[in-house]
Amino acid sequence: MERGGQDRTAAVKEREAASRTPSHSRTHGKAGAQAAEVSGKALGGMIEAFMRLPGIGRKSAERLAYAILGMPMEEASGIAQAILDLKNNSRYCPICNNITEDAVCSICRDEKRDATRICVVEEPSNILILEKTGIFRGRYHAIMGAIAPIDGIGPEDLKIDGLMERLKAGGIKEVILATNPTVKGETTALYLSKLIKPHGISVSRIAYGLPVGGDIEYADENTVQRALEGRREM
Amino acid sequence: MERGGQDRTAAVKEREAASRTPSHSRTHGKAGAQAAEVSGKALGGMIEAFMRLPGIGRKSAERLAYAILGMPMEEASGIAQAILDLKNNSRYCPICNNITEDAVCSICRDEKRDATRICVVEEPSNILILEKTGIFRGRYHAIMGAIAPIDGIGPEDLKIDGLMERLKAGGIKEVILATNPTVKGETTALYLSKLIKPHGISVSRIAYGLPVGGDIEYADENTVQRALEGRREM
Repeated sequence: MERGGQDRTAAVKEREAASRTPSHSRTHGKAGAQAAEVSGKALGGMIEAFMRLPGIGRKSAERLAYAILGMPMEEASGIAQAILDLKNNSRYCPICNNITEDAVCSICRDEKRDATRICVVEEPSNILILEKTGIFRGRYHAIMGAIAPIDGIGPEDLKIDGLMERLKAGGIKEVILATNPTVKGETTALYLSKLIKPHGISVSRIAYGLPVGGDIEYADENTVQRALEGRREM
Repeated sequence: MERGGQDRTAAVKEREAASRTPSHSRTHGKAGAQAAEVSGKALGGMIEAFMRLPGIGRKSAERLAYAILGMPMEEASGIAQAILDLKNNSRYCPICNNITEDAVCSICRDEKRDATRICVVEEPSNILILEKTGIFRGRYHAIMGAIAPIDGIGPEDLKIDGLMERLKAGGIKEVILATNPTVKGETTALYLSKLIKPHGISVSRIAYGLPVGGDIEYADENTVQRALEGRREM
């Protein structure tokens, strides 16, 4: 995916990818080589390809490769085509960085949504998660990452400029910070809060607490502490 | 993958696939539809495509789809190409049913391997697992499934004829039954044992016992019982 003139985040990602490459490719090579020896190069290549995906280890990659083998040709080529379609047809929304196939994404285009509220997320994928709740009817802004000094990622590596331009254009009453409940996400929320408040815009942070359906017995101390602090009168 | 004249197993697999389809496609449709609404049809299609793979649920499929989006074009199209290469170039070995790109698989071709021993497995993927141990230097035979009367799969639905032809051709001293340690695998092993022994060939079954690195505390009763029964003098 090309993002003309906005190549800082891309540079950060490539740097990260490069630092991960050595150990990765060594593992891939070995797993693929043995499969290739026993059952052919195409199988070895497929296993190595699947191992490039996040959360897919050697065993999962082998299982998936044999599943592709067992599929009708039509179904397997459908998966290959879906990958190509996704890469060829999808881009980032120039307003909010959501994934879209159009000039502007469906959420930014939707006149019925509340244009006075922006929910800030780290990644475009988070937009889908929030949309599933169905309770937020405002708009979004994905800043494409989080501040992580230890990884050399500062505010200038994120898509914060675009967010500030939207806020400066006026009409925004509230910004909801829905960055992750992690040190990075918290740091980013704090940074954004300090940046946005002077513009006279209300800034809120999504709540910490016990996950629904969870058992207090298994919650960590920090979560329980946050749940206590965030208690609400009944 | 085409297997001329051997379409009974294929028919069984299609029957199974058909019985799984209704609930599956409903789930796919919903997950893909919401993603398509928020972030475009190509993303929705990719999520649905990944969900057709075994062990990939909605959340994993979403994660994988966004990973494809974040990849360089070259890497993503490499995965698509690997799928097509695998389907176009791989076939079953006509002797043992291992996956191969050649007329006969590398193991059946290898003159240095012990041609007097055949290890019987349920699926071609099991051959790779056994080869990783490096201790078996004979040949294999994948029977493409296991006997499961409850699913309507009898011996006639498996590739047992080919195994028996190899045995009748002579020169085989031992058959190792490495079907799964399940009711189906055990039933199949028992059936094969009764079928093969009259030919004067030694038949053995891989051992049951505690998994290496496991804790006896967490082993189920049946496994502990088998481990006791299979004890060996030290």
